[in-house]
Amino acid sequence: MNDDWKSDLQILFNPRSIALIGASESSSRSRAIFNNLREFGYRGKIFPVHPTRGEAFGLKCYPKVTDIPEVVDAFIIAIPRDHVVTALEECAEKGVKAGVIISAGFAEASPEGKVQQDRLTEIAEAAKMRICGPNCYGVANIYERVALLLGTDVRHVQPGKIGLVFQSGGLLNLTLLAAWDRGWGVSHAISCGNEAVVHVTHYTEYLVRDSRTQVVGILTEGIKDPERFLAVARLAADREKPLIILKIGKSEKGIKAAQAHTGTLVGSDAVYDAVFKQHGLVRVHDLDDFIETVELFSKRKRLGGGRLGFIAPSGAECGLIADIATDAGIDLPELPAKTVGRLKKVQSPFLSIRNPLNAPEQYTRKEEIFNECIAALLDADNLDIVGLRLPLPRMREDRDVVSRFADLAEAGKKTEKLLIVFSRASVSLPEYWRRLLREHEIPFLLEYRKGFKALKSLLHYYRFIDRDKASLDSGIRVGVNLSKVKGLLRSRGRTLTERQSKQILAEYGIPIARESLATGAEDAVRIARDIGYPVVLKIESPEIAHKTEARAVEIGIRSDAEVRASYGRIMENVRAYNSAAQINGVLVQEMIRGGREVIIGMTQDSQLGPTIILGLGGILVEVLKDIAMRVAPLTRFDVEEMLAELKGAKILQGFRGEPPADIAALIDITLRFSHLCLDLKHDIAEIDINPLMVFENGQGAKVVDCLMTRLVVEPRDDFGS
Amino acid sequence: MNDDWKSDLQILFNPRSIALIGASESSSRSRAIFNNLREFGYRGKIFPVHPTRGEAFGLKCYPKVTDIPEVVDAFIIAIPRDHVVTALEECAEKGVKAGVIISAGFAEASPEGKVQQDRLTEIAEAAKMRICGPNCYGVANIYERVALLLGTDVRHVQPGKIGLVFQSGGLLNLTLLAAWDRGWGVSHAISCGNEAVVHVTHYTEYLVRDSRTQVVGILTEGIKDPERFLAVARLAADREKPLIILKIGKSEKGIKAAQAHTGTLVGSDAVYDAVFKQHGLVRVHDLDDFIETVELFSKRKRLGGGRLGFIAPSGAECGLIADIATDAGIDLPELPAKTVGRLKKVQSPFLSIRNPLNAPEQYTRKEEIFNECIAALLDADNLDIVGLRLPLPRMREDRDVVSRFADLAEAGKKTEKLLIVFSRASVSLPEYWRRLLREHEIPFLLEYRKGFKALKSLLHYYRFIDRDKASLDSGIRVGVNLSKVKGLLRSRGRTLTERQSKQILAEYGIPIARESLATGAEDAVRIARDIGYPVVLKIESPEIAHKTEARAVEIGIRSDAEVRASYGRIMENVRAYNSAAQINGVLVQEMIRGGREVIIGMTQDSQLGPTIILGLGGILVEVLKDIAMRVAPLTRFDVEEMLAELKGAKILQGFRGEPPADIAALIDITLRFSHLCLDLKHDIAEIDINPLMVFENGQGAKVVDCLMTRLVVEPRDDFGS
Repeated sequence: MNDDWKSDLQILFNPRSIALIGASESSSRSRAIFNNLREFGYRGKIFPVHPTRGEAFGLKCYPKVTDIPEVVDAFIIAIPRDHVVTALEECAEKGVKAGVIISAGFAEASPEGKVQQDRLTEIAEAAKMRICGPNCYGVANIYERVALLLGTDVRHVQPGKIGLVFQSGGLLNLTLLAAWDRGWGVSHAISCGNEAVVHVTHYTEYLVRDSRTQVVGILTEGIKDPERFLAVARLAADREKPLIILKIGKSEKGIKAAQAHTGTLVGSDAVYDAVFKQHGLVRVHDLDDFIETVELFSKRKRLGGGRLGFIAPSGAECGLIADIATDAGIDLPELPAKTVGRLKKVQSPFLSIRNPLNAPEQYTRKEEIFNECIAALLDADNLDIVGLRLPLPRMREDRDVVSRFADLAEAGKKTEKLLIVFSRASVSLPEYWRRLLREHEIPFLLEYRKGFKALKSLLHYYRFIDRDKASLDSGIRVGVNLSKVKGLLRSRGRTLTERQSKQILAEYGIPIARESLATGAEDAVRIARDIGYPVVLKIESPEIAHKTEARAVEIGIRSDAEVRASYGRIMENVRAYNSAAQINGVLVQEMIRGGREVIIGMTQDSQLGPTIILGLGGILVEVLKDIAMRVAPLTRFDVEEMLAELKGAKILQGFRGEPPADIAALIDITLRFSHLCLDLKHDIAEIDINPLMVFENGQGAKVVDCLMTRLVVEPRDDFGS
Repeated sequence: MNDDWKSDLQILFNPRSIALIGASESSSRSRAIFNNLREFGYRGKIFPVHPTRGEAFGLKCYPKVTDIPEVVDAFIIAIPRDHVVTALEECAEKGVKAGVIISAGFAEASPEGKVQQDRLTEIAEAAKMRICGPNCYGVANIYERVALLLGTDVRHVQPGKIGLVFQSGGLLNLTLLAAWDRGWGVSHAISCGNEAVVHVTHYTEYLVRDSRTQVVGILTEGIKDPERFLAVARLAADREKPLIILKIGKSEKGIKAAQAHTGTLVGSDAVYDAVFKQHGLVRVHDLDDFIETVELFSKRKRLGGGRLGFIAPSGAECGLIADIATDAGIDLPELPAKTVGRLKKVQSPFLSIRNPLNAPEQYTRKEEIFNECIAALLDADNLDIVGLRLPLPRMREDRDVVSRFADLAEAGKKTEKLLIVFSRASVSLPEYWRRLLREHEIPFLLEYRKGFKALKSLLHYYRFIDRDKASLDSGIRVGVNLSKVKGLLRSRGRTLTERQSKQILAEYGIPIARESLATGAEDAVRIARDIGYPVVLKIESPEIAHKTEARAVEIGIRSDAEVRASYGRIMENVRAYNSAAQINGVLVQEMIRGGREVIIGMTQDSQLGPTIILGLGGILVEVLKDIAMRVAPLTRFDVEEMLAELKGAKILQGFRGEPPADIAALIDITLRFSHLCLDLKHDIAEIDINPLMVFENGQGAKVVDCLMTRLVVEPRDDFGS
């Protein structure tokens, strides 16, 4: 089903005429909707519709929408649930192409409501009606002054570059208050409710394609059409329009609570997180971070690097800034000698010239000196960003601050660097500050911690945008014999044996430990001699997935005699464990020593397909859950970011004098693994490479153990595990 | 030197008369100081002092403070630095007992300024003058309307229970703005500057002893007299007056930046963090958290537990709350059946009744139903705290919200549970909200994330206050033969040998691995047989601290023959490594297998003495720096908290079916170690127990290796390492 028409929302956001269904001066909802339209300045025609009233709001009232003698572009419905389907059918009949259904009581409320909502979807799909809702506050187009809204006040909102798509109307309202506070310009404000027809994805696509919208802020409980959404995210990245997303329902509790609200399928949050990273979405985790991040991104500049210079009016504050920047991982380099020299001319001789720059007198003395400090940092070779703290006197308007802010805005326009003004904490902004923020295009961040977090997101965003485009391809050409691989997959049980699993890996050029299957003790001795001692012996049986549990693994075997003894013990243990197990033989394997343990795994996400995890073996994975996740296919950039994400990354880089591990080999193997996962996404449910041993730089890596589980479960026989 | 008089600050905060030194209507600083005093409502006498003027501010002016014919209790000085010493000498002569020195240019500025500041300290100490500053904004006593201040406006600040001690005047100003915003009552506001005489410690003690002050908020770069400060912290804990502290300079950058400001000795932040925890100080890391934490603690209730019930007006918001609470580690238990039954009567049948409670209609429908929801949660058996979100309409005053807030304040008074109102984000508060917050004693927290963090601090505070008082003693009686221990310490080199170190541990009842010193190969064989194979052989030499480096350790030795061979190799390696090393023999040790590796260590802090660290061996310590630190002596409560702090705590509790480790033995050993550290604090600089192997529950633990370094370095001989 082609959904493209749902992203073509011009008629919803800028209708020439609107039918107000359920118009009645005696209904407070109806009055609120009408007032919103009128007071926000809607310039098109409004047609009240009501079954019995002749007039509403001074306008002629029609019994049905089909009675309106003129073209109707859109409707807004806020009538009791049980009348909505009929009203919508009439709209379809009339040929109305868009509208908002405010009414609630649908999928969010009960199974019966779900049935009614499905009916709305059917009617709309058939008539290609772009419908917002039900169970929503509606939409507003701030530029064209169209407010199809209940319960949201947009009268104070200025037009501008920020588009807002919120599943929750209440949280949208709060964000619009922040917009007012911070002097934001907004292009569209959308409360999308149950998304019976038009989804978050379609609104986002519309906003990304809208030339006036430069940043999109999204709040959602889950994405209904993830593949399409990711395509929109790619479009947004191409156009350098950041998508800032607050996805609710990341905790189990949160999922339960959110599900109480709409009928959206809430996928695994970790998978969302992974694909968001892969697509350059800027994820935030609460509303305050959302607000600071939108503020910064709406006034962003293209950044070459993340080196920050800072000016503050006291040593204590410089200390606080340095502490918080260190926590946030923001780089505050020492100032170059040239900059220090220049600052010495204007700074008090008692103050040391450092970064952050303690410049108390510059804040109280002449404007020119203050500006010279800023200019000196803006000229410093090793800085990309200049931050400074401006006080927020609230009791009265401070002319110095007003002119200082105007100067900064000027300086900000002239420089290629990013100039940011910070406040120390989140405090109420007086009207004159709001005016300054509206008038001048300079980022103003409340509170250092939140501000630095937003800055970190901006740096990460540009790292994503500027990633080597060549790295988007894995760069790996695997010449796989797919029919051979599919043959290996024709296994008896649900899990493949270790040997089968490794043979598949080997087909993809993933190096595995030397090994061979022995069918008798003497055969094992022969293989062991060939491989060289010490060796490892493991049972090879499709019925025995948990070999350690079956006591069917022996390591550190050093001689022919030990091989014979071990072979016997393993056979004995296996027979005791599962007397009916089919035994293919015993795998004799080189014993890998040295190297760092890595785990690579794959599971299938119901919506997004093969999901790949990477982690460091042992307690880092098992106790600290230190893994990175992405969805296949992986790019080289993805794998590099995954490695950087690991808390134990230092183990690979080498610590305590250890040489670094062969990270290039690890990346190559992970990319090959990604190819494998995509090729076999309809065949394999899970893969566990545990461990992959990664040797010193230049020495490569080898898979020691691997387990694959097939996706299609064939009728289990008696021996099935 | 007895400093008690410095905490007796009545005369500074409530002087009957004040000399304004450097009074002049033509100086803006002098005008500001006078206006502050007058406008804030000072009721005592003011004596302007100026060398040449006959009159200032309509009052008779005296050439010197000694010319004033009446008693002068306090002074305020804001004259150029080089005149301050003389002025202070005159104050001493006049017998003035307190005062504020605003002037800057002292220790914070230059070595020469430091000399002048030392002179101020001398004069004040001799005359027992309680001096605030220099380089400060001064002090205000809000109850008695005394403002000895420059650059800080306290006219809007209401009297109340919060005392503020800030090293930075600028950050104090910001906090006073927040106080105004949030309707706080403040008892004293103090900007203490360079602390030449009265320190943060003394102000804090004064505030803890002040009956009107119930919470003290502190911002500092470091504590000058840590021992006394900790005594004050104990007093505060006894009186259940929380000290909330923002200590600046935790990062290396932050320390540098902060040092640029005052001359305070900035100790190791990790040690501060440790003693703060041990003394129940509530540490925050930025100003926003400081503000939310002070807000909550100033309206705190004694909590029995931390189980939170929450009410919000939409499902999306419930999801957001659950996510953030999960992040913060706040428990949101399911509601009991009885509560669910009660809520079913008022809730829409379409909504599931969960915690957080999605109650949209209760927010818009009748007051009684809203109150019934709150009452139901307040009555729920398994909740200790009830939180709810109130909207913050700002465009206009909302009568519903005003009356709702008043109802809540009533309900809050009646219940023993803590009732908290939350806003979703940090937005500007309109005047009518500020009025509500001033009028009603109910905590109001901005932004869920910060609010939950503050709540977590409150829970931790009460866990500290309610800790088993019996556990304050270690509960361990060690019958140590101290003269034997001191004998063992008479070692030749700077480091003790492993055997000497372990003998000292053994004296404190700390179990060590079985071992004995062999003086020849056959002796080693005899010992090995006695201990039982496998064994470990290690060189025992005061000159060889790094045994592995010297290849003087061999493990897993399984037979008499192997012992002989190993003994020979070790001797050979040691001679090659250091031919002149004194060799006591070879230590033959049982080889410990199984058990979890723990590291226990001690270092000396220059200010606070023996500092103890505890961590899990291997990569957790080496890569992730996962250690907990406290200052000796440790209480059982301290050790339990240390264990809970470790990221890898799960390893001790047992995971993947492993049984738990013998945590009781680990606690016992750590407490014995604390006794050792205290007894030997003048003898030992460092101790490293690495590893202590902790066995399964009930099986105890054993020290495998230990290294002690003596504190007093004797003249090194040629063999010294």
